[in-house]
Amino acid sequence: MILGMHLGNGYGSQSSAWRAPNVNPANYASFDAQVRYAQAAERGKFAFLFLPDFPGLQADVDHEAPQITLDPMMTLAAIARATERIGLVATGSTTFNEPFNIARQFKALDVMSHGRAGWNAVTTSDPNAAANFGQGIAPRPQRYQRAHETIQITQALWGSWQQDAWIKDQKTGRFAHPDKIQPINMQGEYVASRGPLPIPPSEQGQPVIFSAGGGANGLEIAGRYANGVIGATFTIDDARRQRQAYREAAAKAGRNPDEIKFFAGVMPAIGKTKRDALDRRVQLAELTAASRVPYLGSMLNLQLGPSQIDEPLTAQQLAAASPSPFDPRSPRALEVAREGWTLRDILAHGVIDYHPTPVGTASVTADHLQEWFEAGACDGFWVSIDVNEDGIDTFVDEVVPLLQERGVYHHDYDGATLRDHLGAPAHYGLDPRLALQ
Amino acid sequence: MILGMHLGNGYGSQSSAWRAPNVNPANYASFDAQVRYAQAAERGKFAFLFLPDFPGLQADVDHEAPQITLDPMMTLAAIARATERIGLVATGSTTFNEPFNIARQFKALDVMSHGRAGWNAVTTSDPNAAANFGQGIAPRPQRYQRAHETIQITQALWGSWQQDAWIKDQKTGRFAHPDKIQPINMQGEYVASRGPLPIPPSEQGQPVIFSAGGGANGLEIAGRYANGVIGATFTIDDARRQRQAYREAAAKAGRNPDEIKFFAGVMPAIGKTKRDALDRRVQLAELTAASRVPYLGSMLNLQLGPSQIDEPLTAQQLAAASPSPFDPRSPRALEVAREGWTLRDILAHGVIDYHPTPVGTASVTADHLQEWFEAGACDGFWVSIDVNEDGIDTFVDEVVPLLQERGVYHHDYDGATLRDHLGAPAHYGLDPRLALQ
Repeated sequence: MILGMHLGNGYGSQSSAWRAPNVNPANYASFDAQVRYAQAAERGKFAFLFLPDFPGLQADVDHEAPQITLDPMMTLAAIARATERIGLVATGSTTFNEPFNIARQFKALDVMSHGRAGWNAVTTSDPNAAANFGQGIAPRPQRYQRAHETIQITQALWGSWQQDAWIKDQKTGRFAHPDKIQPINMQGEYVASRGPLPIPPSEQGQPVIFSAGGGANGLEIAGRYANGVIGATFTIDDARRQRQAYREAAAKAGRNPDEIKFFAGVMPAIGKTKRDALDRRVQLAELTAASRVPYLGSMLNLQLGPSQIDEPLTAQQLAAASPSPFDPRSPRALEVAREGWTLRDILAHGVIDYHPTPVGTASVTADHLQEWFEAGACDGFWVSIDVNEDGIDTFVDEVVPLLQERGVYHHDYDGATLRDHLGAPAHYGLDPRLALQ
Repeated sequence: MILGMHLGNGYGSQSSAWRAPNVNPANYASFDAQVRYAQAAERGKFAFLFLPDFPGLQADVDHEAPQITLDPMMTLAAIARATERIGLVATGSTTFNEPFNIARQFKALDVMSHGRAGWNAVTTSDPNAAANFGQGIAPRPQRYQRAHETIQITQALWGSWQQDAWIKDQKTGRFAHPDKIQPINMQGEYVASRGPLPIPPSEQGQPVIFSAGGGANGLEIAGRYANGVIGATFTIDDARRQRQAYREAAAKAGRNPDEIKFFAGVMPAIGKTKRDALDRRVQLAELTAASRVPYLGSMLNLQLGPSQIDEPLTAQQLAAASPSPFDPRSPRALEVAREGWTLRDILAHGVIDYHPTPVGTASVTADHLQEWFEAGACDGFWVSIDVNEDGIDTFVDEVVPLLQERGVYHHDYDGATLRDHLGAPAHYGLDPRLALQ
C-alpha cells in the first residue's frame, strides 16, 4: 500500500481548519508550517506529498481560506531542502503554462530534491482562471490537445540532456558533450519549443507524471503518460472500476498496467472513540453545518431545514428517504442516517466531504485502508487530514503502526526517488512512440 | 555603499571557474553550494543577491558551464529558507512569462523570505529563447510595450489584497474582507489579467523592481518602476552619466531620484600580492587565454597572435597601439599594456571581462569601490566573484572590513526587508499614475 499526503493551505482539508484550536491562523503564509507537516508525513514513510493547485483565488474568503498553497513550486522547494525521501508532487496547468517553463521548473525541483519530483498535469476549465491570463476557455478537445502537446514537449525537454552528457572533467576541461545536449524542435498545434533545457538529469532521470482528470480525455492522458492517478471515488466497487479503466488505458497505450498506480482519496476522522472523532468534526463545522443541511436533504430526497440540525431523522422521514442518484455519496449518507444520528452528526461523518471518511479510532481508518486495498480498489491512498497541525501526527503515530503490524505497509523507504516509491520503471525523455506528428 | 552579490551557475563568474582547484565540478546542480555562497554574502552584510537569467541554454557547453542557475526562483526559494536578512533578486523575462505567473511566484518568494524579494524585469530579444516558446522575436517597441504592461499588471496583482484585508480572526470566523480582495481587471495590448492573486502582503508589502536594460526604452522602464538598476560601465565618468540618466528618468516619471539606486559591476581579482592575484586569473584562463589574444589585438588596433601570449607588446607595437573606439574597455587595456605586462597578464587584468577588475590585494578592491562611490559614480556595486568557493569568503573577510573601517559600508543590516536595505520607499500595488489606459 502506497500512501500520499495532501498538502493544501497550511491548515487542513476541512474548510474551517484555520479556526481549529492550536492552529496558527497565519499558517496560510507560513512555509515553516508546510515544512513541519511534510516532515511529519516523511516520518510516516509517505511515498509523496500531493499539492493541488488552481491558478487563481477560489474561495469564499469571508469565512474560508483558499484551499491551495501560495505557490506549489515554491512550497515544494522549501520542503525539498528539509526532507530526504518523500516524493514531491505539484499540480501544474497544461492550459496556462508554457512547456518550457513547466519543464524547467519541475526538473529543477527534481534535481534539487535528488529525484523526488512529480508533475500532476491537469487541464484548467475555469473561466476565472482563464481570465487571469487574459483568455477565455477553449473547447475541451483543444484543451486536451494542448495538454498532450505540453506533456510531450515537457518530457522531450526533460530528456534534452542525454543521461551521460555532463562530463565535468576538470582535468581535460570538458564540461559536457555538445552533441548529447541538443534542441528538440517540437512543434504542436498550440505549443512548441526548441530546447534544450539548461538542466542535467536527476537521480530519477526526470520527474514522474501524475494525472487527476476523469472522462475519456483524462483516461487517455493518464494511460499514456501517468505513473500515478488521484481518483475521486466513494465505494470499493466504483474504485475498482476506475482503477481498471486506468489500467486498461495504460495497456491501450502500449504500457504495462502496473506502471500506473491508482490512489483513492480518504479523509479520516480519528478520535479516542467514535464520539470523540465525531466531536472533532462537529466542532470544525460549527459555522458551516447548518448551511449544509438542505443539501444533505437533497441527497436523501427529503426537504430538511437547519432547525432540525440537532435531531435525527423522524421515523416518517426515514421511511420516505431514498438516496439521490445525482450524488455518489448519497447511499452512505442514508446508511449513516439510519443509524439514528442527528443531522449534525451525520454531517460529521463526512458524508458531503470530497472523499470517504472513516470515523472512529485509528483502527477504523486502518480497517478502511486495508479493506479497500485488499479488495483491489486501489494501489494506495491520497490522505487528506482534517487539521494538519495535530492530525498528521495522529495518522502517523496511530494509523501507520497498525498498517505496518498488519503487513500491508512498509516500515521504511526502500528506494531514494519518487520513481522508486511508486515502482515506476526507468523513463527518460519522451517515449518515441508518443511523439507528436 | 550598498553591495549586491552576483549568483550564477554555482562556480563563479569566470567561465572556467568550474575547473578551479577546490571547486566541486558538480556545483551546477548543487543547491547546497548556492545556499553556502548566499550565507557567506549575508555574513558580509550584502544587501541582495542578484541572479541573472536566460530562458534557454546559452553556453559553449563543450568547455563552459551555463552562466545561470538551474532555475532562479527555485534557487532563491532554497536560499530564502537558509538566510535571514539578505535580499533575493531574480531576473524574469517580461517577454515570455504571463504576468499572473510572475506575480504569483515572486510574491510567494516575498512572503517566504519575509519581505526580501526583488524582480529584475527584463525584455528578451534572443531568437533562441523565443524559439523555446515557439515564438519569434517581436519588434522592440512591442517588446517594451509588453514589458510595461507586464510590470503594471504584476504590480496591480501584488496589490490585489489590500494591506489590511487578511483578518484571520478565529473567534469570529472571519478569514478576510472580501471587499478588500478584488479583481484588477487590467487589459493591455499584449497581456491581461483579472486577479486577484491568492497571496497576502509580505513584510515589505510586495517585491521591489530592478532593471538592467539600457537604451531609451530601458531608461523609461527603470525610471518608472525600478528601485535598483544594474549597470555595465567601465569608467567613473561613464558610470556617473549612466547614474544621472537613471535619476533623471525617475524624476521624469514623477519620482524622487533617490528612489533609484545605481549599481556598477565589479569583478575583483584578489591575492596576497598583485602577482598572486594575476596568477589566480592566469590559472583560471589556462584554456581560454590564447583564443582571446586576437580580440585583445583588435581592442588595441594591432594584429596579435597566440604565439606572443607570454611576451609583452614590443616597443614598435606599443608605438602603433591605439584604443579601439568600438570597445569601452580598450583604454584600460592599453593602459595595462603600457605597463609592460605579457599578453597573458594583460588578459589576467580582466581587460576583456564584463566589468572592471581591480587587481591586487583586498585594499586595491576596497580602493576601487571607495573611489567610484565617493566620486558619485554609483550607489553601490554588483560584485561578481571569479570563483565563489573561496572568493566570496575572501571578499567578505578582507574587503568588507576595510570598507567598514573607512566608514563607507555598514557594520550590520539596519532593516529587515530588501526595501529597507535599498532605502526604497513604501510602495504597494500599482502606482495609479502609471495605470494602463
